[in-house]
Amino acid sequence: MYAITIREPGGPEMLEWKEITDPEPGPGEVLVDVVSSSVNRADLVQRVGAYPPPKGASEILGLECAGIIAGLGEDVTGWTVGDRVCALLAGGGYAQRVTVPAGQLLPAPHGVDLVDAGSLPEVACTVWSNVVMRAGLRRDQVLVVHGGSGGIGTCAIQIGKALGARVVATAGSEENLQLCRDLGADVAVSYRDGDFVAAAKELGGADVVLDNMGASYLDQNLDALAPDGHLAIIGMQGGRKGELDMGRMLVKRLTVSVLGLRGRPVDGPTGKAAIVTDVREHLWPLVEDGSVRPIIAERVPMAQASRAHELLEAGGVRGKVLLPVQ
Amino acid sequence: MYAITIREPGGPEMLEWKEITDPEPGPGEVLVDVVSSSVNRADLVQRVGAYPPPKGASEILGLECAGIIAGLGEDVTGWTVGDRVCALLAGGGYAQRVTVPAGQLLPAPHGVDLVDAGSLPEVACTVWSNVVMRAGLRRDQVLVVHGGSGGIGTCAIQIGKALGARVVATAGSEENLQLCRDLGADVAVSYRDGDFVAAAKELGGADVVLDNMGASYLDQNLDALAPDGHLAIIGMQGGRKGELDMGRMLVKRLTVSVLGLRGRPVDGPTGKAAIVTDVREHLWPLVEDGSVRPIIAERVPMAQASRAHELLEAGGVRGKVLLPVQ
Repeated sequence: MYAITIREPGGPEMLEWKEITDPEPGPGEVLVDVVSSSVNRADLVQRVGAYPPPKGASEILGLECAGIIAGLGEDVTGWTVGDRVCALLAGGGYAQRVTVPAGQLLPAPHGVDLVDAGSLPEVACTVWSNVVMRAGLRRDQVLVVHGGSGGIGTCAIQIGKALGARVVATAGSEENLQLCRDLGADVAVSYRDGDFVAAAKELGGADVVLDNMGASYLDQNLDALAPDGHLAIIGMQGGRKGELDMGRMLVKRLTVSVLGLRGRPVDGPTGKAAIVTDVREHLWPLVEDGSVRPIIAERVPMAQASRAHELLEAGGVRGKVLLPVQ
Repeated sequence: MYAITIREPGGPEMLEWKEITDPEPGPGEVLVDVVSSSVNRADLVQRVGAYPPPKGASEILGLECAGIIAGLGEDVTGWTVGDRVCALLAGGGYAQRVTVPAGQLLPAPHGVDLVDAGSLPEVACTVWSNVVMRAGLRRDQVLVVHGGSGGIGTCAIQIGKALGARVVATAGSEENLQLCRDLGADVAVSYRDGDFVAAAKELGGADVVLDNMGASYLDQNLDALAPDGHLAIIGMQGGRKGELDMGRMLVKRLTVSVLGLRGRPVDGPTGKAAIVTDVREHLWPLVEDGSVRPIIAERVPMAQASRAHELLEAGGVRGKVLLPVQ
């Protein structure tokens, strides 16, 4: 098969579409003929060598895919060769074929093009596990989504609205703010010259903040939270170390979590399979009824993944950059 | 009735047993003839003027009591005059009579002396709401309890063991470490010259840390946590501001909460009544079967509350200082 390999850690130009050995499904794994993967910010970090794959995972980039089941390892039940699926991966998505633990498979959602479904698993599982499973967002609460026009953000806005929450989204340009509004955000605030804290407070304070900035937003995020609020940090683009004011947290009874997806084990109460099961049960119906759609900024043939990485690095991408296999 | 009043903000000598007007139960409230209250660290802070009571709460000290119902306000169901009860209070416990929202009442647990039961509600609700309801401690997990020989600590060790967790407790003297062991702690570590992080790691890392120090322990607490661990901060005796390493949190998927009890509303999903209901349903049976006992360091007549405050300020108190009404 062909896959994107990394010549050596470095820029997008290091990515190369190259023939390599096919993977074989082990016990409990499924072999998928990939029709698409998509780019996540973590891929860029992995490409430069700063985010090594977890032990046992594929060295190949790609944290999600859509495709068709081409083979089953031992002890796999509930799936059949030919099933249209998408999958949360620990790696290996930028390839014509990938193996994945059966617990990380989702049926391709009805009503969504199979190719487009390759943009869903990573953002869906990230947002759902943080905003709903961990932070417990409920109807009529207030959700703040930073980076509202990005891959995670476009998904989070839609999930927030589908659950009946009010959503404040931040973005950097008028076009991106408009996308947030189009997706249902009640308020869209520029992170260049707007005041998301004030916007959240006008709605009574945020019950949940989904944050990709870390240190640089820590104080403002805590300020924006309502009593019993939860700050769910999933990225640290603004630094990893910041001063935490626990006195401020005590007064409002606040919680801060910093949760990743990729390092989780497959099984167990906090494992990937548990998240995928919850997503399938509770979020997939919202995808199938059209409340939550994949938002795709660009489609770049997988063989040209280097161009896709350049796009994401340039910034301002609205939604996901999809990598269809040609 | 008589109650402890504060002549003016200051030392223990400012506390005065004085005749004042009886409280009257409003709608949804119950009047309790107090047989005992007990001292919490927050009382010392309130006495010096640094922890004002929440809006609408009694100005009188005392966050818990035991007693006998002496009267019912309008719209109170499920309770009868003469019932032996204990109660979580927003204030008013250092008095012969107190009014309390019915949702904050608990039946006095069978098998526990009614006077001693006045030492239970605040610690029971604090530990339960943090360690179980928020942090989700489960059987076979590891719980670290700081200040294991204090009021909160002695309760937390017993709850951890009753739930089937392994418990690492910290304390400051050999006598206090022995008390932790007597209460069931698997490991007791001196916070003067011991290494609780190493002790927790030997058990595979802490799933939950219950902390009363805040800033001074923040880094070590995060270090002690296992993947998916939860740091539940309930006090900041070591400072309120500390550097938070979100990168370290991401790797292990950690959560930090700083939750108080007193500022909560009575009703709602995070309110006091919801906690009391959960405590009554799940913790009270463990109190009634003797798994979780009140640990009382000293009994000081309520009229001598100043002496009780001096005791707690001197440090090293093992368990709670009870204030029986004579």
